[in-house]
Amino acid sequence: MKQGDLLYLGKAKSVYLTDKTDELLVVFRDDITAFDGQKKNVLAGKGGYNAKVTAYFYPLLEAAGIPTHFLAEVTPNSHLVRRLSMIPLEVIVRNRAAGSLVRNYGFTEGQPLSPPLIMMDLKDDSRHDPMVTDELILAMHLATAEELAEIKRLALAINAVLRENLTAKGLDLIDMKFEFGRDTTGMIRLGDEISMDSLRLWDHGAIGASLDKDVYRKELGDVMETYAAVAQRICGK
Amino acid sequence: MKQGDLLYLGKAKSVYLTDKTDELLVVFRDDITAFDGQKKNVLAGKGGYNAKVTAYFYPLLEAAGIPTHFLAEVTPNSHLVRRLSMIPLEVIVRNRAAGSLVRNYGFTEGQPLSPPLIMMDLKDDSRHDPMVTDELILAMHLATAEELAEIKRLALAINAVLRENLTAKGLDLIDMKFEFGRDTTGMIRLGDEISMDSLRLWDHGAIGASLDKDVYRKELGDVMETYAAVAQRICGK
Ligand SMILES: Nc1ncnc2c1ncn2[C@@H]1O[C@H](COP(=O)(O)OP(=O)(O)O)[C@@H](O)[C@H]1O
Ligand SMILES: Nc1ncnc2c1ncn2[C@@H]1O[C@H](COP(=O)(O)OP(=O)(O)O)[C@@H](O)[C@H]1O
Ligand SMILES: [Mg+2]
Ligand SMILES: [Mg+2]
Repeated sequence: MKQGDLLYLGKAKSVYLTDKTDELLVVFRDDITAFDGQKKNVLAGKGGYNAKVTAYFYPLLEAAGIPTHFLAEVTPNSHLVRRLSMIPLEVIVRNRAAGSLVRNYGFTEGQPLSPPLIMMDLKDDSRHDPMVTDELILAMHLATAEELAEIKRLALAINAVLRENLTAKGLDLIDMKFEFGRDTTGMIRLGDEISMDSLRLWDHGAIGASLDKDVYRKELGDVMETYAAVAQRICGK
Repeated sequence: MKQGDLLYLGKAKSVYLTDKTDELLVVFRDDITAFDGQKKNVLAGKGGYNAKVTAYFYPLLEAAGIPTHFLAEVTPNSHLVRRLSMIPLEVIVRNRAAGSLVRNYGFTEGQPLSPPLIMMDLKDDSRHDPMVTDELILAMHLATAEELAEIKRLALAINAVLRENLTAKGLDLIDMKFEFGRDTTGMIRLGDEISMDSLRLWDHGAIGASLDKDVYRKELGDVMETYAAVAQRICGK
């Protein structure tokens, strides 16, 4: 694999072309951001912890029959992935209420949601990632009705796999954010990452005992100590 | 019919009990408000025009097989209605893009939406009427899945009736807001009002030629002249 030109410089990852047109190199940087990029820091080691957790979960999901973009770890903080045509949605699955659900809709922090609640935001920082409904997604031609149904099916299936895995490690999976895309055959695959940046995790049984990016957002403690400890708890090494 | 105690003082209407437990008197006041009630005025005659347009449309909808709360006009600005257990949703149907769809999602002003786009906001001024998805409506127990499907079916059917009627009068129906509730048998009925406060109407063929509450919101001209002329155009008297 040969690293080619930079394709996309995101807030926390850099995406490079490779010598194969349908494969990309994703580099997890040490940048951490919150509030649409208004809060920004560089925390040495952060990219590696997120890459490690992502590299742990994606093969597990593939084994459970969920198509992902993941192909291989290249270095401790970079992955070879299938190039996807990304669908600009942040697909959120919530097992318990937290964050905007409490702020905007009056749910109680930690309130169980059964079935898990799927929500979708338009991925568009300039518009502050506004929430979208199924009808809006169709009207904006972001996905077809069939793709939308498949995205929801996959999102719930991924939640089930993650939740079982994390519960066994004493981690309560409160909610999570996924990004999906189409591969060259049009198949919907999970892209992006699954990490402390995209999961909301609480230490088992303790409401709001954050072990994820909320430690950074809300300044709840040492962010890198938390990321290191959670990566270790999840990956077991 | 005997007017009883005030049951609910809204921003633009007052709702009174009557001598029958399942019937209410709705009085259309001359108050006009916008932006969650931040902008407020009293415009003499306004209540009467809205009452007149509502009294014109509800029987028309009933004749088209759509269950409504409307029973009778009592005075030029008050109606006898069936008491409903209101579902706290603002059900919006959009035939063309305007307002928040342009502001928040990048649609073009006046862009046709086909099929008509249904959106729903939680009716809660204190939370600024946040948008809700089907999944949120179910998680908040605001309606059952069957009720939600029926609300959407009725909303589209009402739009079709209104649109045909208004088009014939040279009025382009851009979007509209409905409120539904359950009657004593659990049937979903259209409640509230259909008026210049709840319809977005443009003079035929002219993008943004507002003939509705936008004249008040955006200070586009004489609000009462507009309401009077539109009521006349709609009701033909
Ligand atoms: N398999 C893939 N193919 C193409 N683009 C991808 C893939 N996986 C993730 N991406 C995109 O690459 C970017 C990753 O960098 P990130 O720092 O997360 O960016 P952002 O600031 O946009 O969230 C994201 O925009 C994401 O949508
Ligand atoms: N048939 C009905 N039964 C009970 N309540 C109704 C009915 N129709 C409308 N309502 C409610 O009565 C109130 C009408 O007054 P309005 O000034 O529109 O109030 P608001 O400021 O809440 O919008 C609304 O809250 C509406 O939901
Ligand atoms: Mg990202
Ligand atoms: Mg009202």
